[in-house]
Amino acid sequence: MGSPPFITFLSDYGLRDEFVGVCHGVIARRCPSARVIDITHGVARHDVRAGALALSSALRYMPAGVHLAVVDPEVGGEGERARRAVALRLAEEGRLLVGPDNGLLPPAAELFGGVVEAVDIGRSPARLEPVSATFHGRDIFAPVAGALAAGESPAALGEPFPIEELRKLERSLARLRDGALELHVQHVDHFGNLILDAPHSLLAQLGLRLGRPVSVEVDGQEHGARYVGTFSDVDPGELLLYEDSRLTAALAVNRGSAALTLGLRRESKLTVRPA
Amino acid sequence: MGSPPFITFLSDYGLRDEFVGVCHGVIARRCPSARVIDITHGVARHDVRAGALALSSALRYMPAGVHLAVVDPEVGGEGERARRAVALRLAEEGRLLVGPDNGLLPPAAELFGGVVEAVDIGRSPARLEPVSATFHGRDIFAPVAGALAAGESPAALGEPFPIEELRKLERSLARLRDGALELHVQHVDHFGNLILDAPHSLLAQLGLRLGRPVSVEVDGQEHGARYVGTFSDVDPGELLLYEDSRLTAALAVNRGSAALTLGLRRESKLTVRPA
Amino acid sequence: MGSPPFITFLSDYGLRDEFVGVCHGVIARRCPSARVIDITHGVARHDVRAGALALSSALRYMPAGVHLAVVDPEVGGEGERARRAVALRLAEEGRLLVGPDNGLLPPAAELFGGVVEAVDIGRSPARLEPVSATFHGRDIFAPVAGALAAGESPAALGEPFPIEELRKLERSLARLRDGALELHVQHVDHFGNLILDAPHSLLAQLGLRLGRPVSVEVDGQEHGARYVGTFSDVDPGELLLYEDSRLTAALAVNRGSAALTLGLRRESKLTVRPA
Repeated sequence: MGSPPFITFLSDYGLRDEFVGVCHGVIARRCPSARVIDITHGVARHDVRAGALALSSALRYMPAGVHLAVVDPEVGGEGERARRAVALRLAEEGRLLVGPDNGLLPPAAELFGGVVEAVDIGRSPARLEPVSATFHGRDIFAPVAGALAAGESPAALGEPFPIEELRKLERSLARLRDGALELHVQHVDHFGNLILDAPHSLLAQLGLRLGRPVSVEVDGQEHGARYVGTFSDVDPGELLLYEDSRLTAALAVNRGSAALTLGLRRESKLTVRPA
Repeated sequence: MGSPPFITFLSDYGLRDEFVGVCHGVIARRCPSARVIDITHGVARHDVRAGALALSSALRYMPAGVHLAVVDPEVGGEGERARRAVALRLAEEGRLLVGPDNGLLPPAAELFGGVVEAVDIGRSPARLEPVSATFHGRDIFAPVAGALAAGESPAALGEPFPIEELRKLERSLARLRDGALELHVQHVDHFGNLILDAPHSLLAQLGLRLGRPVSVEVDGQEHGARYVGTFSDVDPGELLLYEDSRLTAALAVNRGSAALTLGLRRESKLTVRPA
Repeated sequence: MGSPPFITFLSDYGLRDEFVGVCHGVIARRCPSARVIDITHGVARHDVRAGALALSSALRYMPAGVHLAVVDPEVGGEGERARRAVALRLAEEGRLLVGPDNGLLPPAAELFGGVVEAVDIGRSPARLEPVSATFHGRDIFAPVAGALAAGESPAALGEPFPIEELRKLERSLARLRDGALELHVQHVDHFGNLILDAPHSLLAQLGLRLGRPVSVEVDGQEHGARYVGTFSDVDPGELLLYEDSRLTAALAVNRGSAALTLGLRRESKLTVRPA
C-alpha cells in the first residue's frame, strides 16, 4: 500500500570499497521491501562535524523513515574510549535516527522536534554475530535500521537511556564585531564553494546590500567580492558572497573554486565587511 | 501494474556532497513509487557538452520514463543571463526530459523523434518554495520530475513555449581532408580512453582496414597505432584505434591511458591516417 | 511474493561515466521489478584479484539472487585471447553468478557450496545486438542478469560447459617461517588500511597476544605496532595490527593511513613478528 518504508543512509565509507554495498545487502536481507536513499558516502573520513552538517541539510528533503548515519572514528573502542551506538525516535513524523552517539545526529534531530526516545543498540538482538571491532555499520547500525524499517520498535531493539546523556558537538559561530563579520569555513563542497558558519540573515545585520562590493579578509590580505544572488551575477573568475541553498552565507568563484582561490579549508577563519 | 514509473538522473553534482541524495529525497516525497536510475553524476563540472554526450549515449538503454538531467552553469541567473528551466515531451515512447535549456537535452531528444511539447517550468506549481538561487536541481527540476512520474502532464506543470526556441549546442565534427581524418576529443572516459567526434563509419571512408597500422598525429608528432576491434587485439601499452561502444571512433592504450600517453584532453585536435 | 528479485552488481567501471547507469537501464528494461544493489564500482581498473576479494567479502551479506560482476581486461578478445562469458548456478540458495570467466567469480562461488551448473553466455539469446567489442557489461552480462532475475534458467540463456574448465586465480598466501609471518598486501582500502593475505587465525599461531607490541618489517626496516582489537585501542598516528571485518589480518594507522605511513601497495611484501 502506498509508500514503501524508506531508509536514508549517509556515511564516510566512500564508494571505492564494498562497505556501502554490504550495508545495503544487510538492510535488504532484514527488510526486503525497504527503499534506501543514499544521501552521500563522501563525508570526509572521520569528520563528524561535516557529517552532521550534510545530514541536517538533507533531512528536511527526505521522506519520513529511518535515517541511518555512520561517521564513527571511535568504532569498536572499549571502556573509556567507547561511544554508544544509538537509535533515536524524534518528536515529529515518527522519524528515527540510527548511528553512533558522537554528535553526528543531534543537529538533524532538532529539525524534527528533538529526541523523545533514545536506546543503546550496542547489544541489540538485531545485530549480526560476531560483531566485528571495525565495521559496526554492517554489524549493528544497518541491521537495526532494517529492523526498524520492518516495523520493530526502538524499545525492542535496545536499552533505553536518558536523552540528556546524548553527546553534542560544539559548533563554531560567526560573530559581528566592529562592523565586520568574523566567520569560519564549515564545509568545502564538491565545487570548491565555501559554506560559512553564519545564517544568511546575519549578512543583512552587517548592512550588506545585494549587488554591492564586499571585502573578504584572509590572513591579513583583502580580496574584493560582490554580494549577489547567484554565480552568474558576477563574471567568470570573480568572487561572490551569496546565500547557499542551505540558507547559510557562502563564498564561491563563478566557474572556479573559492577554496583554491583563497587557499581556505574547513575551519579556516575569515572576515567579511562592506567594501 | 507491472512496471513502476522510472526516473533517470544525470548531473555534474558529484557524490561528495548531499546534492544527489537530496534530489532523490525530493523525488521520493513527490512520487514514492518512482524508481530512480542514476546514469552518472560524474559529468565534469559545468560541462554541458559532456553531459549531453553521456545523456544521449545512455538514453537508448534506459526504460521509458522521465529523464532528469542537470548540468547548469547559469543556474539562478536573472534577465539576460537567465536560461529557461524546461520539461520536454518527445515524439516516441512518451519519454519526458527535464532540465535546463542550455543545449544539454536536444541530442537525447533527437533519438526519440524530437520534441513535441515544451514547457517552461521556472515557475512551476510543483516547485519547492522558496526557490534557491543555486540549487534548482532540488527546488525545480527534481520536484517537476517527480510530479511527471506521478502522472501529471507537462502542461499542468509549466508554461508552453515554441519548440524552436530551444537552445542547441554547436558540435565539432571530424572532417576528411587530403586522405586524413581531422578529429577532436569529445570526451575522456574513466579509463583514459579518448572518444572522438567521428562516427565509426568515417574510418571506412578513410580507407582503414581492421588489423592495419595507422598513424596518429598530435601537435606535429606521429604516433603508431593499430586499427582493431578491441583492447586485447594489441599488446599491453600499445595504442589502438577502435569503434567505441557508443559507435564512435576512439583511441585507447591496452591496459593504459591514451589521454596520458598522448597528452590529450577534451577538445584537443588530432589527425588520423593510414600508416 | 514478498521479496523482489535482487541483483547485486560489482565492477571496475567507476562512477565518472555512464557505464554503470547504462547497465542499470538494461536490467530495468529486461526485468522492471528487479532491485539492484551496487556492491561497488570502485574496483581498481582491470584488477581481477581485487574484484574477487570484494565480491567474496560482500556476498555473504547479500540477499540471494543474481550476482553480476564485471572486471574484464580481456573483453572482446578473439581466438586465443578470448575469455568465456559465463553464468553459474551455485549449490546453495539458488544463487547465480554472471561475469567473465577469468577468476573473478570462483572465490565467491566457494562460499555457497561451489558451482553446480555453468553456461557460456557469449552467444546468449538475451544479449543485445550488435554486441560491442568493448562493453560486454551492457551487451551481454546485464541483459543475462536481468533475464535470470526475471526467472529464465541458465540453460535457456547459454551453452553448458564442464565446470572444471572454469579459470581460477592463484592466490598468494602468507607463511610462517622462523617465528615470523611473511605476508602480502591483498588490498588497500579507502582509508589506507592494508588488508593482508592471512586469515586472522594465523596471528594466534604466531604467538601474538592482544595488547602486545609487534614488529612490522618492510624492506629491511622495522616499524613498531601493537596487536589490538580496533583503531582506537592505540593513539592517533600509531600503527596497529588487527582483525579486519573480513576476518583477515590487517594493518592500519589510527586516524591515519597505513599505506602512506609504510609506503606499501597491493602485493607488497612484509613480515610480522612479536616485538
